[in-house]
Amino acid sequence: MPGESKMRYKLNQEKLKELEPIFYPRSVAVVGASVNEQKTGSQWLKGLISSGFKGELYPVNPRGGEVFGLRIYRHLRSIPGPVDLVIVCIPRASVLRVLGDCAAKGIKAVYFFTAGFRESGETEWIKVEEEMVRRARQGGFRIIGPNCFGVYSPEHGIPYGPFNLHAEIGPVGFISQSSGHVGKILEFGMTRGVGFSKAISLGNGADLGSADFLEYLALDPRTNIIGLYVEGARDSRCLFETIRAASEMKPVVVWKGGRTPAGARATASHTGALAASADVWSGALKQAGAIEVQGLEELADTLLLFQRVGRLERSNVSIICGLTDGGGGEAVLGADACAALGIEVPALIEKTRQELVKFLGEVGSVLCNPVDLSQRFGDPQALERAMELVAAEPYIDVIVMYENAGVILGSLLKERADELNNTIVNFSQKQSKPVLVVLPPGPAEMRRLEIERMLSHAGIPVYPSMERAAKAISNVNRYFRRNAGSSKAQKRL
Amino acid sequence: MPGESKMRYKLNQEKLKELEPIFYPRSVAVVGASVNEQKTGSQWLKGLISSGFKGELYPVNPRGGEVFGLRIYRHLRSIPGPVDLVIVCIPRASVLRVLGDCAAKGIKAVYFFTAGFRESGETEWIKVEEEMVRRARQGGFRIIGPNCFGVYSPEHGIPYGPFNLHAEIGPVGFISQSSGHVGKILEFGMTRGVGFSKAISLGNGADLGSADFLEYLALDPRTNIIGLYVEGARDSRCLFETIRAASEMKPVVVWKGGRTPAGARATASHTGALAASADVWSGALKQAGAIEVQGLEELADTLLLFQRVGRLERSNVSIICGLTDGGGGEAVLGADACAALGIEVPALIEKTRQELVKFLGEVGSVLCNPVDLSQRFGDPQALERAMELVAAEPYIDVIVMYENAGVILGSLLKERADELNNTIVNFSQKQSKPVLVVLPPGPAEMRRLEIERMLSHAGIPVYPSMERAAKAISNVNRYFRRNAGSSKAQKRL
Repeated sequence: MPGESKMRYKLNQEKLKELEPIFYPRSVAVVGASVNEQKTGSQWLKGLISSGFKGELYPVNPRGGEVFGLRIYRHLRSIPGPVDLVIVCIPRASVLRVLGDCAAKGIKAVYFFTAGFRESGETEWIKVEEEMVRRARQGGFRIIGPNCFGVYSPEHGIPYGPFNLHAEIGPVGFISQSSGHVGKILEFGMTRGVGFSKAISLGNGADLGSADFLEYLALDPRTNIIGLYVEGARDSRCLFETIRAASEMKPVVVWKGGRTPAGARATASHTGALAASADVWSGALKQAGAIEVQGLEELADTLLLFQRVGRLERSNVSIICGLTDGGGGEAVLGADACAALGIEVPALIEKTRQELVKFLGEVGSVLCNPVDLSQRFGDPQALERAMELVAAEPYIDVIVMYENAGVILGSLLKERADELNNTIVNFSQKQSKPVLVVLPPGPAEMRRLEIERMLSHAGIPVYPSMERAAKAISNVNRYFRRNAGSSKAQKRL
Repeated sequence: MPGESKMRYKLNQEKLKELEPIFYPRSVAVVGASVNEQKTGSQWLKGLISSGFKGELYPVNPRGGEVFGLRIYRHLRSIPGPVDLVIVCIPRASVLRVLGDCAAKGIKAVYFFTAGFRESGETEWIKVEEEMVRRARQGGFRIIGPNCFGVYSPEHGIPYGPFNLHAEIGPVGFISQSSGHVGKILEFGMTRGVGFSKAISLGNGADLGSADFLEYLALDPRTNIIGLYVEGARDSRCLFETIRAASEMKPVVVWKGGRTPAGARATASHTGALAASADVWSGALKQAGAIEVQGLEELADTLLLFQRVGRLERSNVSIICGLTDGGGGEAVLGADACAALGIEVPALIEKTRQELVKFLGEVGSVLCNPVDLSQRFGDPQALERAMELVAAEPYIDVIVMYENAGVILGSLLKERADELNNTIVNFSQKQSKPVLVVLPPGPAEMRRLEIERMLSHAGIPVYPSMERAAKAISNVNRYFRRNAGSSKAQKRL
């Protein structure tokens, strides 16, 4: 429908330029840093120093002094050079005064760690929040927050708040109304190999909201995949239109918090977000082309697979299990977990089955897909041959290895266990079909985590359960099926 | 309906006596053990020795010799003393001959690790399996398997197959058609504190099936909770009647494998189980009073909670989060995860809220239930006071702590982190409401696992996500709501 398409919102290229000083500031002032190095403001400053931020740094505190070798300015106005970005960690009663200074100094943006405004439910403080936005408009700068940790821009040496979190730099951009969820998703990234271009904790979103940052990330050339945690939107029509426009270019994975009455009560106290029907949200997200997920794990699992496999227009899975023993139950579990989500685990053709029988035998093996290697107990050659055979089938799109680390580590020598995992890595690198590994937790956690790190490092997405791997496959595939006609989306990943 | 109740199957007390030699044999023969210590049969023997089995042990192999200091008998018949239980690890072509010897020796039961019968799909071997059962009937003994690992009876020094798995002894009995799933559930037990009375891998179940072992465990005084992994049943009416009778006494948690067409194809190759409609199974399990779960994790999670909390007639949850920071997002996540499963997270009464405000303040806190402690950043006194206040509410039944180990370990000294966890343990022990801890994986896995072990050791059930904790609460509560009228079930847990 060309008429409808003309009505659609188009991303505004100006947004890139407008928000650039937030992600790439030339200079940062931290209001609330002090001679006490343990104060939040000082910790924030310390994070900027240790993350290698190259621009100018200015601590600000009416009491003056010095911290981490830097002079503390008594007022924003007394800073000699220009200031792009201001980080504010002071009690709520003082914020309006600081905003006056921001305007006088000609800054570009400010973020407020300071909380206790709209989310307090108190009329007085709701009004202060509204006044903050008015003053920013008058002063020609933008506000992130209040009640937030601001942005994470690792490429430019901007750390995540006062925390010492260093995820890898990568293609995922994340926008969140919860600062805690940003921290947790960065942790997932560190342990499981999700790399981030930028992350934004926007708190109450009094001025800049989810839609603004979404527009920015959709246009940002460093971001190929967008994650969004949202509790509510002041202008939900605008948000959905932006999601629609962004989804045509890049996958937008959305987790809506406060879907239930109890959850919505919590969002009201958290970011002041108002309750809205979960079904209405789900319908609108689907229409806008977003991939909706439930919870932090599904969000991280899905972002990881988008990053690792890129495109996935079809999702027929072959499962290989029983790397040492117990493959029969794993075969049933794996097939059920995929099929329950509508992912096909097609039977192998008779010729392939006959090839498998040659080295796996008829007895004690499941060879129909899933393929159970139990009978060749930990044999890397059998593993490689089985992977080659199933990958050669034109109707198989994804290969999932179920690796029971507990049994492998308990029954094989370390060298043999390493050889099995190296076989998976080599195979995954020499052909184009995505290979996932399911590596459930068990009693030998340290060694299992070493295997997970090794596989992740080699670019293989690792999941703790078949159910979670299957859900991620289903989510990623859904995006590419929906956007099969969109050349933009196909080109990017 | 008294008429209907009279029709119901009654558990047969004779079953206890009949199967006793399987779990408490006075002597065990291992057919297939040999001078080669690496062979499966020899490894099985080694397991029995190292598990402290106190009865007589007899290796059997036509070639004779000696292994682990024990004389290898050439035939079962040549063993001097009586033999209760025989474990068979030899090729399938020789099993019928061994069965003749079993009859001659007057054994009570035999299990076959040997595979390649009904599950091979070959007429010849299906017939051999049928002949095996006939010979057992004639010889007056029972068969477990074939294609199985037999039983785990730790109290009597019977290990799980040739594996070196030692879960704690406890109240959970587990029956499974997959030997791998038994291994995996014992691993869960070792790491998360589920204790087992007995476990049974029954493979094809040619003679003794799930219903037989279920009847045994229902009557077994050492077993208070029963887990069941089932792919199919030869006599499903009998299985459902047994589940019904067992559920009136103890929770029966059932995972049906092969619910999907792809999964059913795998069960056919695995244990020869035939496909049946998943919906029919679910309906019948519900009618029989079983708690149906999907997958290994939900099974383990549910067994753990049954073991730890015992009864749970009501399930109103209070969530405490933000032990250090980021409690707002955790509050929304937690409330949504519970409410999505129908678990109430009721708002706290105003008086309690006012008490919380006194030490948590109005600003930046979610105090409605969930209760967010962020503002008192890692303060054990605040944690204790909050737990006391919510536990004092008569309409709160369960307290769930959300502990973000990544932030706690990254931002607190070890002593302070330990103090927080000790506070949870002490509180959990001094009052009767169940306390669960949600402790998601993160970047500091070693220290997180130490915390998990400490909490588990103190009797606190620990879950890796709110979703999984909520699912376990919902499952356990469902059993007690359904069986509210059954005095037997109430008395046992």
